[in-house]
Amino acid sequence: MSDFNLDWQREARTGVAEAVLCEPKTPAQIAAILGEAAARSARLLLTRLALEQYDALPRALREQLDFEPLSRTAILGGLPSGKPIEGALVVAAGTADLGPAREAARTLAFHGHTAPLIADVGVAGLWRLNEQLGRLREARVLIVAAGMEGALFSVVAGLVSAPVIALPTSVGYGVAAGGVVALHSALSSCAPGVMAVNIDNGFGAAAAAIKIMEAARR
Amino acid sequence: MSDFNLDWQREARTGVAEAVLCEPKTPAQIAAILGEAAARSARLLLTRLALEQYDALPRALREQLDFEPLSRTAILGGLPSGKPIEGALVVAAGTADLGPAREAARTLAFHGHTAPLIADVGVAGLWRLNEQLGRLREARVLIVAAGMEGALFSVVAGLVSAPVIALPTSVGYGVAAGGVVALHSALSSCAPGVMAVNIDNGFGAAAAAIKIMEAARR
Amino acid sequence: MSDFNLDWQREARTGVAEAVLCEPKTPAQIAAILGEAAARSARLLLTRLALEQYDALPRALREQLDFEPLSRTAILGGLPSGKPIEGALVVAAGTADLGPAREAARTLAFHGHTAPLIADVGVAGLWRLNEQLGRLREARVLIVAAGMEGALFSVVAGLVSAPVIALPTSVGYGVAAGGVVALHSALSSCAPGVMAVNIDNGFGAAAAAIKIMEAARR
Amino acid sequence: MSDFNLDWQREARTGVAEAVLCEPKTPAQIAAILGEAAARSARLLLTRLALEQYDALPRALREQLDFEPLSRTAILGGLPSGKPIEGALVVAAGTADLGPAREAARTLAFHGHTAPLIADVGVAGLWRLNEQLGRLREARVLIVAAGMEGALFSVVAGLVSAPVIALPTSVGYGVAAGGVVALHSALSSCAPGVMAVNIDNGFGAAAAAIKIMEAARR
Amino acid sequence: MSDFNLDWQREARTGVAEAVLCEPKTPAQIAAILGEAAARSARLLLTRLALEQYDALPRALREQLDFEPLSRTAILGGLPSGKPIEGALVVAAGTADLGPAREAARTLAFHGHTAPLIADVGVAGLWRLNEQLGRLREARVLIVAAGMEGALFSVVAGLVSAPVIALPTSVGYGVAAGGVVALHSALSSCAPGVMAVNIDNGFGAAAAAIKIMEAARR
Amino acid sequence: MSDFNLDWQREARTGVAEAVLCEPKTPAQIAAILGEAAARSARLLLTRLALEQYDALPRALREQLDFEPLSRTAILGGLPSGKPIEGALVVAAGTADLGPAREAARTLAFHGHTAPLIADVGVAGLWRLNEQLGRLREARVLIVAAGMEGALFSVVAGLVSAPVIALPTSVGYGVAAGGVVALHSALSSCAPGVMAVNIDNGFGAAAAAIKIMEAARR
Amino acid sequence: MSDFNLDWQREARTGVAEAVLCEPKTPAQIAAILGEAAARSARLLLTRLALEQYDALPRALREQLDFEPLSRTAILGGLPSGKPIEGALVVAAGTADLGPAREAARTLAFHGHTAPLIADVGVAGLWRLNEQLGRLREARVLIVAAGMEGALFSVVAGLVSAPVIALPTSVGYGVAAGGVVALHSALSSCAPGVMAVNIDNGFGAAAAAIKIMEAARR
Amino acid sequence: MSDFNLDWQREARTGVAEAVLCEPKTPAQIAAILGEAAARSARLLLTRLALEQYDALPRALREQLDFEPLSRTAILGGLPSGKPIEGALVVAAGTADLGPAREAARTLAFHGHTAPLIADVGVAGLWRLNEQLGRLREARVLIVAAGMEGALFSVVAGLVSAPVIALPTSVGYGVAAGGVVALHSALSSCAPGVMAVNIDNGFGAAAAAIKIMEAARR
Repeated sequence: MSDFNLDWQREARTGVAEAVLCEPKTPAQIAAILGEAAARSARLLLTRLALEQYDALPRALREQLDFEPLSRTAILGGLPSGKPIEGALVVAAGTADLGPAREAARTLAFHGHTAPLIADVGVAGLWRLNEQLGRLREARVLIVAAGMEGALFSVVAGLVSAPVIALPTSVGYGVAAGGVVALHSALSSCAPGVMAVNIDNGFGAAAAAIKIMEAARR
Repeated sequence: MSDFNLDWQREARTGVAEAVLCEPKTPAQIAAILGEAAARSARLLLTRLALEQYDALPRALREQLDFEPLSRTAILGGLPSGKPIEGALVVAAGTADLGPAREAARTLAFHGHTAPLIADVGVAGLWRLNEQLGRLREARVLIVAAGMEGALFSVVAGLVSAPVIALPTSVGYGVAAGGVVALHSALSSCAPGVMAVNIDNGFGAAAAAIKIMEAARR
Repeated sequence: MSDFNLDWQREARTGVAEAVLCEPKTPAQIAAILGEAAARSARLLLTRLALEQYDALPRALREQLDFEPLSRTAILGGLPSGKPIEGALVVAAGTADLGPAREAARTLAFHGHTAPLIADVGVAGLWRLNEQLGRLREARVLIVAAGMEGALFSVVAGLVSAPVIALPTSVGYGVAAGGVVALHSALSSCAPGVMAVNIDNGFGAAAAAIKIMEAARR
Repeated sequence: MSDFNLDWQREARTGVAEAVLCEPKTPAQIAAILGEAAARSARLLLTRLALEQYDALPRALREQLDFEPLSRTAILGGLPSGKPIEGALVVAAGTADLGPAREAARTLAFHGHTAPLIADVGVAGLWRLNEQLGRLREARVLIVAAGMEGALFSVVAGLVSAPVIALPTSVGYGVAAGGVVALHSALSSCAPGVMAVNIDNGFGAAAAAIKIMEAARR
Repeated sequence: MSDFNLDWQREARTGVAEAVLCEPKTPAQIAAILGEAAARSARLLLTRLALEQYDALPRALREQLDFEPLSRTAILGGLPSGKPIEGALVVAAGTADLGPAREAARTLAFHGHTAPLIADVGVAGLWRLNEQLGRLREARVLIVAAGMEGALFSVVAGLVSAPVIALPTSVGYGVAAGGVVALHSALSSCAPGVMAVNIDNGFGAAAAAIKIMEAARR
Repeated sequence: MSDFNLDWQREARTGVAEAVLCEPKTPAQIAAILGEAAARSARLLLTRLALEQYDALPRALREQLDFEPLSRTAILGGLPSGKPIEGALVVAAGTADLGPAREAARTLAFHGHTAPLIADVGVAGLWRLNEQLGRLREARVLIVAAGMEGALFSVVAGLVSAPVIALPTSVGYGVAAGGVVALHSALSSCAPGVMAVNIDNGFGAAAAAIKIMEAARR
Repeated sequence: MSDFNLDWQREARTGVAEAVLCEPKTPAQIAAILGEAAARSARLLLTRLALEQYDALPRALREQLDFEPLSRTAILGGLPSGKPIEGALVVAAGTADLGPAREAARTLAFHGHTAPLIADVGVAGLWRLNEQLGRLREARVLIVAAGMEGALFSVVAGLVSAPVIALPTSVGYGVAAGGVVALHSALSSCAPGVMAVNIDNGFGAAAAAIKIMEAARR
Repeated sequence: MSDFNLDWQREARTGVAEAVLCEPKTPAQIAAILGEAAARSARLLLTRLALEQYDALPRALREQLDFEPLSRTAILGGLPSGKPIEGALVVAAGTADLGPAREAARTLAFHGHTAPLIADVGVAGLWRLNEQLGRLREARVLIVAAGMEGALFSVVAGLVSAPVIALPTSVGYGVAAGGVVALHSALSSCAPGVMAVNIDNGFGAAAAAIKIMEAARR
């Protein structure tokens, strides 16, 4: 019996394709999954693929992948053709939050969405956020990536009417190590309507944004 | 200087009105806020209003409120006129989750949305969920309220394409006391696109749903 | 041997008088301490004195106390004469944070400081904070009281050059219950120079502010 | 005095043989234990034996061991002869859960049981589970291995009458890192009769299954 | 639509009947469920029914219930007729663990099993346990209820070959408050094959024991 | 079968008599235990006996008990005759720590030891401790009771050569609520040789001190 | 769009310059930030710069940096000219606390302050602290760095009148691993007026001290 | 000013010499401390000295040290001459607990005590403990080292009258990872008089035992 059983119907059923979470898998398991996808000529998104795991894949597979080390994502089969869907916006509090933010942007692109990204607008200097206020208010759905104390979630959600998906990141140390403080700040935000996904889960944040955009198109 | 300073422009700015979180306030503070709202002829939603707090309000104020003990919500000024907006659906895993689920439904109604509620469809008996599959798939946004281990979030999100807002409840005991297990199950769901709000935060879940419905209408 | 041994020299040695933390003490113990202070004609500050504890004190003692239920503080012997020292400012994020904020203000007053208090300036409506920006920037030391996600600490500290003492409060529910999220937000603030005291410790926040004001006067 | 004192009578007394937990032991300690077992011509199961530990053993010992890196188990002395006992079934939610699931299967085999394993039937795609429903209902005892939010425990236990042993795995990240969410989901399952073992404890899950099968044979 | 939707087929499907967890329900909700059961002439088990909740039920319902305050259980419709199934044994470490232990015993009886209970055999005096060794070794499945440090789980499991279901109780204070230490001791027991249920979950422990006994009878 | 089975030989076997932990027991259970002790003319120590529990005992039993509400202890049968053993000393950091400190002192007295108690010597005013340095250095074993941050454990252990038993108390609020900070301070003390017992466990601290004193007498 | 957007006005606005937290950044990101600073001829402070990150920077950049491995800090552009401001004092409990203590001292120096440092004055030997009492009492603001149980915070704060900034360090193991015990000891200190910053946050402690010194100079 | 300031009078003042905790120190710092000790011809105990740290010391220093990798201890200057003091006994639950157990034994030897060690007597096979009962009952003070669930603490303390020092070890995985379960089992033991030290703190356990033995000799 096989070690895996991909849910190829998931995109049709739920609007978002199954992605391969690579972190807990061996290179052999990842290669086997890529092999099945290639045999079906299917497009596939890989997340949390460490550089060491990528390097351990057979060269022939590596050459088929569009791999980005910062976001630890790889795409097999390229982006969808056709005009991208506009409306989503990704905001990163600091330079250090760019990994998960890029994972979200790459997931949006994989599903045919534009994925503009605004970086380094943390609340310790509110003027940086104010410069971007126009773009923030134009978006139909926002993904906000922040670590440390995550104050950006509340500040953004108090300024816009679009849904805000909080993407807490594991950036921080001491009590903030691992991202729990940012996550809890999102969940207990004084600005109503903030929704949270798991720490560093850029894929999940994008999946939620895609579903929201789809709800708007039905 | 006053003890409070309501943000009357919040609905215009963010799409959701400021609600009064009553739990940490004294009856005198609640009465003063209600007085200001009445003076402005403004509608107002009160959340986490315990029966004891309600009973301690002046009779004249109590008579103006539509109070529901199960959800601990009160509405001043009635529901909006006009045809309600359709598309949101509230699902409660068990009878014990009805408090937060009703808080969400009441918040939806306060903002002019329909708020149908399906109760007692926990995963220990999947046939109950299957009976409701048609209604689940018709919804444009779902709020799923569950305590204990919160398995319902993943099961529902694996079946529908609409966005799923997980509303973890504090129902449970032992390791599940306080609702953290349900919250963490929502955040680490194997079904992509689940978004979570704070434990028992029916108001926040509804606020998010309203923003998603608005995004769909723009 | 006596059950207590007050440190009457503490104010001379450290700049802040010993206060009586009443919560874990019996009414008999509190009464005995008040009796010794009265016998010395000493002024005394009592903190975390619940209404039930106050009511259980002998009437003669109650009549000598200036008791404020909201902050659970009582003062024996009145405020110091002379012109109060100016420079400290207390800011409360919401109405619900007024208890600890008032404990700080009362402690400042007990030690001869002015204690102005700005209430209800949470970040979900930044305009409220902006209206107070002038007063915030004039202060020589700020105590900021906030519960929930505590985003106010970072926002204020990013706007002023005076030291900011974060006073996290236990206002909140779900993951924010007990105040730990607000505390951790203060500690991991992206705005440098925020200092934190224990949750609901208005006395400690004021003690720190008094020491900072004294350092400025030496 | 010796560093170890193996409990050779344990299988007779409790039905399950003592296994050697290798993780916290030095290679020299492991080699000494294997030496004593070989001297007694005893069969022995080693668990949590890392590849590095295995490689550090003397070659003569390595050649006597049947070592499987994925499950980190090694068997000295082969499997028991005779017809294996049928009835146990191991289910793994995802490919990433195969390590602990295989540890359980190897432990069953060491004790003379068949150990069929069904992989990749997570609840985000319930159709995969439904395809296996017949096999699930035939089993006399089930070990279900799952990480992340562990929703599979409740879903399986709601479908079968045999005892379900939940084997939470450490697969996950963010709040699910380390496996505590899966463990807590098992413990607070809304489906009655789920029993849990420690995170990644495939040996313990199998030991429990063996005892249950024995109880059925007495 | 109704607030509840009982899973009357659960016993046929899984071997254990659905029980009504009363703690998070209002008396009105409990009464409505009892009413439906009575209308079907169905037997019903209620768990975690506080004395105050019981007292708030209509007298007519109370008179139909067999209520035991110590275990907070009530039975509607009496025990099953016919010869009880023998083999299960409940062991309680101390007098204080009798509440959950009795909940387990009552659940066993409701499902037609004998439910002998041995009390006060904690490991601080091993002679008490040794006196009962014969009865312990005769049982086909054991439920061991213990709070505090839960050392009894390991000691019993090291002495018998039958499966041991650890029922951690919330008895304890300081670090042991709430029962987490006992639960964790069960999960990390050095004696293989111990399985754990949630803290104070006597119902779940009994449900597991019933499934194990059934597995033995198939 | 009886609900309890007292270990009357424990004092002979381990040097400390079994005490009855009353908190999790019903008044009927406590009364039954007292009845058995009275029938044997045995002395008995009751701990964590709340005033409400004491008041619910039959009057005849109450009259035989020496009950102290502050320490929640009761003694049946009086103190031992003969000259008390000298050497133990109990130190309490603050007035609020007197409950557990008195529980320790009463347990010492029950077992025939003197139990002097020094109160209110917290480290915020080291002069209070210095005044008692002679008595501290004369003791053969010290029990130090402290809540809050528990700095007293390290300071005392750095000054004396006798063994120091840290008795953390649950006095505190915010992060110190429940006593875990004091406990952890004791365990990670920079002064070697500090030993800790559970939070508020005055009985256990005294039991350890008694065993240490006995070791010195053998 | 750029990955970073430095807040060059922060020193003017808040009194403390933005520093670059290097730990979560790639060498390429750090090099780009240094490049922008060099282009502006701006001075810059880098914190949490691991030796491996430093070694991965281009040689030309490395040669411009004053790098100190123990504190993991680097300074671009040297210290400010002019007479340093006197008054701050850094105290380290043990040799192992020198890393964060030096980060604080280097940050003070970067901003034009003297930064004397007293090392190894832990409370297990109070005589070491007493030898330094004069210097402690002369300081206008103190930063106290301590790990383990952090008793030094309370002892120092009980002896001086200047503000005390507690800098908990991650030195410790067992329950003290990571520094949470030291942090919690600071927050729950029985000596009033202790303020805490995050674990190992020497930069933040110094930023707070600088603001306090500035408040004294206005 | 020096980075360190050893407390050479500690043994005279408290009965136990200061040891050098090497884990958080650099090799240069360790070498400097050893240099000062050698210059004084002082004996010195080093704890938590990793093999890598030892290897990084200058060869001349390494040759003066008696280093044992398993316990990570090194002794400078050899053991004391004269007849060792008898009475202490170290017990280790399993082979994996030998590291901390040996640290305790080496610390005892450094201070002139015998340090017999009994290994591998975990409670899953009580017969192993019973074989050693005579030796256990002869000891005047016992150090019991155990990880996992730590049931051995309660079982031993129920069998002997001497004081029992629980030394929890970090052996374990899942919920038991890091040793907190064993620590909490010790603290909440149902056997009175168990005292605990920090996880893996073999030095502290021995320091406590030495103080107890000294108390017995005064």
